[in-house]
Amino acid sequence: MANSKFEYVRNFETPDPLMPNTWIVVRVDGRGFTKMCAKYNFEKPNDRRALDLMNAAAKAVVTEIPDITIAYGVSDEYSFVFHKSCELFERRSSKLVSTVVSTFTSNYVHQWPTCFPDTPLSSPLPSFDGRAVCYPSVQNLRDYMSWRQVDCHINNLYNTTFWALIQLGGLDNKEAEKTLAGTLSADKNEILFSRFSINYNNEPEINKKGSVVFRDYELVDPASNNVAETIDSVAEPVKQSKSQREKDKKRRAKARILVEHLDIIKDDFWDMRPWILSGKPGKVPKET
Amino acid sequence: MANSKFEYVRNFETPDPLMPNTWIVVRVDGRGFTKMCAKYNFEKPNDRRALDLMNAAAKAVVTEIPDITIAYGVSDEYSFVFHKSCELFERRSSKLVSTVVSTFTSNYVHQWPTCFPDTPLSSPLPSFDGRAVCYPSVQNLRDYMSWRQVDCHINNLYNTTFWALIQLGGLDNKEAEKTLAGTLSADKNEILFSRFSINYNNEPEINKKGSVVFRDYELVDPASNNVAETIDSVAEPVKQSKSQREKDKKRRAKARILVEHLDIIKDDFWDMRPWILSGKPGKVPKET
Amino acid sequence: MANSKFEYVRNFETPDPLMPNTWIVVRVDGRGFTKMCAKYNFEKPNDRRALDLMNAAAKAVVTEIPDITIAYGVSDEYSFVFHKSCELFERRSSKLVSTVVSTFTSNYVHQWPTCFPDTPLSSPLPSFDGRAVCYPSVQNLRDYMSWRQVDCHINNLYNTTFWALIQLGGLDNKEAEKTLAGTLSADKNEILFSRFSINYNNEPEINKKGSVVFRDYELVDPASNNVAETIDSVAEPVKQSKSQREKDKKRRAKARILVEHLDIIKDDFWDMRPWILSGKPGKVPKET
Amino acid sequence: MANSKFEYVRNFETPDPLMPNTWIVVRVDGRGFTKMCAKYNFEKPNDRRALDLMNAAAKAVVTEIPDITIAYGVSDEYSFVFHKSCELFERRSSKLVSTVVSTFTSNYVHQWPTCFPDTPLSSPLPSFDGRAVCYPSVQNLRDYMSWRQVDCHINNLYNTTFWALIQLGGLDNKEAEKTLAGTLSADKNEILFSRFSINYNNEPEINKKGSVVFRDYELVDPASNNVAETIDSVAEPVKQSKSQREKDKKRRAKARILVEHLDIIKDDFWDMRPWILSGKPGKVPKET
Repeated sequence: MANSKFEYVRNFETPDPLMPNTWIVVRVDGRGFTKMCAKYNFEKPNDRRALDLMNAAAKAVVTEIPDITIAYGVSDEYSFVFHKSCELFERRSSKLVSTVVSTFTSNYVHQWPTCFPDTPLSSPLPSFDGRAVCYPSVQNLRDYMSWRQVDCHINNLYNTTFWALIQLGGLDNKEAEKTLAGTLSADKNEILFSRFSINYNNEPEINKKGSVVFRDYELVDPASNNVAETIDSVAEPVKQSKSQREKDKKRRAKARILVEHLDIIKDDFWDMRPWILSGKPGKVPKET
Repeated sequence: MANSKFEYVRNFETPDPLMPNTWIVVRVDGRGFTKMCAKYNFEKPNDRRALDLMNAAAKAVVTEIPDITIAYGVSDEYSFVFHKSCELFERRSSKLVSTVVSTFTSNYVHQWPTCFPDTPLSSPLPSFDGRAVCYPSVQNLRDYMSWRQVDCHINNLYNTTFWALIQLGGLDNKEAEKTLAGTLSADKNEILFSRFSINYNNEPEINKKGSVVFRDYELVDPASNNVAETIDSVAEPVKQSKSQREKDKKRRAKARILVEHLDIIKDDFWDMRPWILSGKPGKVPKET
Repeated sequence: MANSKFEYVRNFETPDPLMPNTWIVVRVDGRGFTKMCAKYNFEKPNDRRALDLMNAAAKAVVTEIPDITIAYGVSDEYSFVFHKSCELFERRSSKLVSTVVSTFTSNYVHQWPTCFPDTPLSSPLPSFDGRAVCYPSVQNLRDYMSWRQVDCHINNLYNTTFWALIQLGGLDNKEAEKTLAGTLSADKNEILFSRFSINYNNEPEINKKGSVVFRDYELVDPASNNVAETIDSVAEPVKQSKSQREKDKKRRAKARILVEHLDIIKDDFWDMRPWILSGKPGKVPKET
Repeated sequence: MANSKFEYVRNFETPDPLMPNTWIVVRVDGRGFTKMCAKYNFEKPNDRRALDLMNAAAKAVVTEIPDITIAYGVSDEYSFVFHKSCELFERRSSKLVSTVVSTFTSNYVHQWPTCFPDTPLSSPLPSFDGRAVCYPSVQNLRDYMSWRQVDCHINNLYNTTFWALIQLGGLDNKEAEKTLAGTLSADKNEILFSRFSINYNNEPEINKKGSVVFRDYELVDPASNNVAETIDSVAEPVKQSKSQREKDKKRRAKARILVEHLDIIKDDFWDMRPWILSGKPGKVPKET
């Protein structure tokens, strides 16, 4: 039986390839997480279980999609970076976005009981939306990552002070808001320290810096490479021999995936881990 | 602390609104479900638990997103139709696609233990991809839906015969394939009947027709309306009064969501349920 | 000699097909025409030579591109409508836009000396930009056309009054602007009539209505068809036999192309000329 | 009079911004130039008048649109490169493409009588289509330019030999085609030399290399800069002071626009003219 009479409807699909030779960032955001936080009693300003769950889901995404070279998460958002040479799904935007969002969601829901053993999920379940943005140069990509980390810092400092005023200072939400209106970073640090003896610098790194997910290879001397320049000047995906490709694949699969809380704004993070920008797996460190 | 130095990266986001006044179909497809079927021992040719799980996830999506007017699913795919007047997320493609895919995935994973009580999930978890396609006219939309249902029929007839040859006839995969090469529908019906005394017409409707999800209102006389023409001639979203909008919302929320296995190719299905194309909630049937 | 080393750059071209089964409007706008009007001393409020030139260029475009079913122009803009079944250039947006803009420009510049025999062109030459917009339904398309014609009316009434105040009333630009600030249509009609004995209704149709370009076939009884509904319900381009296609082509080529100044907001214009929406050539009127 | 009833149609316009921080190439191609060549008796294999006309039109485009940093033309095509920092028309694709195509067409038609004094134009007039492609890195851009120049070389060598076989060798088209089938560059050079005493190297540069259009500043020592790397690492448009912007604008306006026939594949062309990639005007050479 021929299906041809209706098959013309296929022509209505529009192609959505992302520009070649650009960095693809797929950003995942929690939907209605303010409500969710309330519903499941997330701790304020940061719920460690919730962050661990986000990180576990992100780690699963990076593990399952080796084209992702680095990911960065904070609060209820996570950004996944596909290397500029990535050819996965012919770089189709909706395929890339939906696959990342679905894999993330799937793991988030599945691992929920591990992180929240006493809090069963109920409808409506947590869900996420996503979108893809391309960045042409390494500097654009790093500026994107820096933007998210600066945002993390600004929000966390604000939230830490806000909730200290409420939880320790006995203010209500409106009073806390008013107290913070117009304050600079230094003012917030001062409030924390003078009123509550909290030294913001001693706050957990995961809250101050967010979380970075990447493969673990041997660190290199930052002065030994200029991977950013080299990578910017690469014009198209390197055609690797099949054996080289297989070798890289194995190395990548063998690499541990780390979730750390590091400064990704300064050069050092990138210079010591050239594999993140080069896309070439580094040396797998010896087990100790 | 100003974040302005990096904030320029926002300009790299490209707008992706879908054309106004067109029907939006978001189609969700299982990723790597052939492997998944094997891993979790799905029954062949149709695993009722797996279909029930797909339907449960779809029902949750339609419940949570009232802009979806109908959904149709078969095998590991589901198509969700947003009414042409829908303004959700300003019709941004990636928002719509990712929200549907995430909500679907979330419910699929969460309800897995209900449908597969003896088969715990393990990594890699099930996941789905998705994409959006727009259709300008009712006819285009109905042709899309018909296309999927014809596909369901063709595949199910093939698979039913294929697995009968193997499970009942003792053939191996290659022999079954060879037997079916070049056969027409009539031939397959004949094989089923003469060799295995299977009357294809008596196969379960869910397998032959797939599943349709929609809100339940009182059916109307098919001759009493020509909703398709009326709707095609509507040029822009009707501006409703706020009270009317609230009323519609309540009615929609009150409506039961049905999962049925009906013919959606013929006119009757649509003519008896004008609310699906009109987007105006019908009369909620009295409880019996 | 192989060119393959560089040929990869081709992959950076992104496809830009317009949605099938939708009406494509390519709108052409004069670039910097305020300056141009001054440079070449266009008469105010309407320069008949300039309008004739626009119309001549538009007529050439419609003649050369038979997929255009109707065009509408006012001032320094022209909208060209491709039938929703059009497959020209696989509906690639940039091809369609650039071809219309280039053909229009080419004829505008070439026919300039005919319309402005005493005013040679000099650098920078007149030029136009363009863009494509799609409309899913006949009502959307007609609303677009109505929008342009209402705009024509509003602007022309304003400009006619504005320039009467200056040219006949002796006001300067600022005084005229001030006089008109906040006036309604009725007020402007009144100013024209009471101060300058101008009955706006007697102004030239070309100024009040703009110009419509279309092929000339025998008019039909408006009550005899409901082409809009019929066309909205058409789902895909009709597959014609080759001989039918050739016949249509000949008939289209034989048809005179008219430039008229008619009301295109009311139904009559469209109902009497069903070929514009149906895309099927009408009956070529007998020469008289 | 309010226009609001129809104004909703504006929402159907879809935004089409090109990705920031990428090189935009607008390529213009002659429409149906094979026919045009025949109609106006263009000389084979190269008609100098036709090339001069293309170059004159391109020069006018570069003059009128200072955001264009370089252009390259061959046969009936021309590529215009907008600097990656360009913000013209908010980088809207259809605006950029249509403006270039219209300005090019306008000048082509207007200057036709200068280049073809004895051959008046007639309908259908020459016209061009266009499209935009973005390139993220300098290397991608240069590879695009190289691709066009290699193409020029390959086609010109073929055409030169093909027409020599016909015009000097007395072959007909088919025989000439057959003679050339499967030949390499060396073979064609040999045919030209041995049969017709033509040394391909002595052919006019304009035929062998095509034409490059750019602003003329003082050449610099190629070793003195690495503009490509510098420019690749620039992440966003430099925010210039208004006075600096005005200064640059004047310098750019003062610069002569050259049409030359140079090798643009090798580094030297670019290294000696860093202003093409940097976008910063160089030193205007002293008049001599």
